[in-house]
Amino acid sequence: MNELKYLQKIKNLHRLNPHVIVGPGDDAAVVTFDGPLQWLITSDMLVEGVHFTGEATPPELIGRKLMAVNLSDIAAMAGVPAIATVSLAIPRGTSDTYVYQLSKGIEDLAHKFGVAIVGGDTNGTSGPLTLSMTLLGRATAKGPVMRSTAQKGDAILVTGRLGGSRAGKHLHFTPRVEEALYLHQHYSLTSLIDVSDGLASDLRRLTEDRGLGAALLKAKIPLAEALGQGSDKLRHALTDGEDFELLFTLDPLEAEALLHEQALVDCPLTRIGTVIETPGLFWLAKDQYLEAISWKGYVHG
Amino acid sequence: MNELKYLQKIKNLHRLNPHVIVGPGDDAAVVTFDGPLQWLITSDMLVEGVHFTGEATPPELIGRKLMAVNLSDIAAMAGVPAIATVSLAIPRGTSDTYVYQLSKGIEDLAHKFGVAIVGGDTNGTSGPLTLSMTLLGRATAKGPVMRSTAQKGDAILVTGRLGGSRAGKHLHFTPRVEEALYLHQHYSLTSLIDVSDGLASDLRRLTEDRGLGAALLKAKIPLAEALGQGSDKLRHALTDGEDFELLFTLDPLEAEALLHEQALVDCPLTRIGTVIETPGLFWLAKDQYLEAISWKGYVHG
Repeated sequence: MNELKYLQKIKNLHRLNPHVIVGPGDDAAVVTFDGPLQWLITSDMLVEGVHFTGEATPPELIGRKLMAVNLSDIAAMAGVPAIATVSLAIPRGTSDTYVYQLSKGIEDLAHKFGVAIVGGDTNGTSGPLTLSMTLLGRATAKGPVMRSTAQKGDAILVTGRLGGSRAGKHLHFTPRVEEALYLHQHYSLTSLIDVSDGLASDLRRLTEDRGLGAALLKAKIPLAEALGQGSDKLRHALTDGEDFELLFTLDPLEAEALLHEQALVDCPLTRIGTVIETPGLFWLAKDQYLEAISWKGYVHG
Repeated sequence: MNELKYLQKIKNLHRLNPHVIVGPGDDAAVVTFDGPLQWLITSDMLVEGVHFTGEATPPELIGRKLMAVNLSDIAAMAGVPAIATVSLAIPRGTSDTYVYQLSKGIEDLAHKFGVAIVGGDTNGTSGPLTLSMTLLGRATAKGPVMRSTAQKGDAILVTGRLGGSRAGKHLHFTPRVEEALYLHQHYSLTSLIDVSDGLASDLRRLTEDRGLGAALLKAKIPLAEALGQGSDKLRHALTDGEDFELLFTLDPLEAEALLHEQALVDCPLTRIGTVIETPGLFWLAKDQYLEAISWKGYVHG
């Protein structure tokens, strides 16, 4: 299944609509309603066996993850989450208690981030548990931050640590909504994305549309503690996906000020590299030598 | 699976949100963004084996139905459809052609009703094809028409004919968006709902919240031609569900004017009964005798 193909197929439709400012392709679409503000719309689905293991995962954490991945998309546009719908396809025979716990996982995180769940649909299914959410958020007065607007020479930064998803972070992470709002308010981010498919994939997304590339410093990649000392820890950190950290670019001088300030609470900030003119992903080695990185991120299917 | 229970569970959340005017429970939620207008949000999911037969249904018609059922919910609030998201869980091994045809079914109807599809998510699944849509629409300047605001003595009317879903109407119906807008603009509808779970269920929904009931005229129920002359055709018309016609109430004098005007093109309009003080559903027999109707509509599961 090729998501891009499907999205491209429907791209023409949104062009005709006066409400749509940015259609599919970024972390969220950008629309206006009947006021001056810009609004963000994202929709993420979780399928048992793909995004979580049904038996091994407590239902609260499944519900929590549904809310969290959608919140992460609004964070990736530096927006304020507001309103959501939830639709569930629930395997027949599932207990009321299970569904209650699932709902509680959704609601607790919704409540924490001020999201109202205004509707949805529940159905029985002969297949795996499938959860779908659409989340609307408000862009700030500065507008949203897009993913494909980085400039050559910009510093590349990332929040938190990468590669922890296999150890369970994908079920427990706090979406970086507040961090994104803070960064957007106080600095001039030139691009922003959440690391959902692995740094290698998402960094390509951030640079490729403009024909740019990225030079990374191997020693600067912030590795999740759970990765331990294995020889392939760097590969895991770049390709495992579901980190749900913020990956962003800004002017190198601003980056220096930001790193000096360290204003984010309980959220490491690391400069991992620089946007360069050469398309592709590279390790920056001695004497400015660029060593190509061939790793790809996680591909859904 | 008890949808009401789930919805009640999350009702408290939406109360805290300044954007939410009406939370879950009607055909669509009513919200405001940053302008004066009211907006409608609905979310409906289709599951293979529940809402359509996978092998027997052409993918275009599955996609079409996803768009149509969501449009019908916006019609049921007398709103103008605007923006949608679509998420799909697609059985592994499904061909690109199949997905293309599915998308085309969604898009063709979206285009017809001016809807922009701004985002979504596609995933593989080990289970049945599952499609989820969230659709936003704009209420007119008169505001939306709710489902639980009928008055005692109001005439009960329905568009089209009932009971055709088994013969395939649920895949081919045109959502009554334009009809609802016309009716709302030119008449004072006191309540409005779409017949999705069968007249028996949806008429109860329309009257029960206010402790009212409905007296129906057996001979006036507009039967789908496909029902033929079977002895249980009336039961099918009241309980089969998925008619997706408009069921609405208005002052009896206005109803008379509307029926005289017959302004809707290719859309029969029939007065089928009256809102009464006695809770429940009744056939109105000779000498104002009320014969209780025990049939229930379709219950999803």
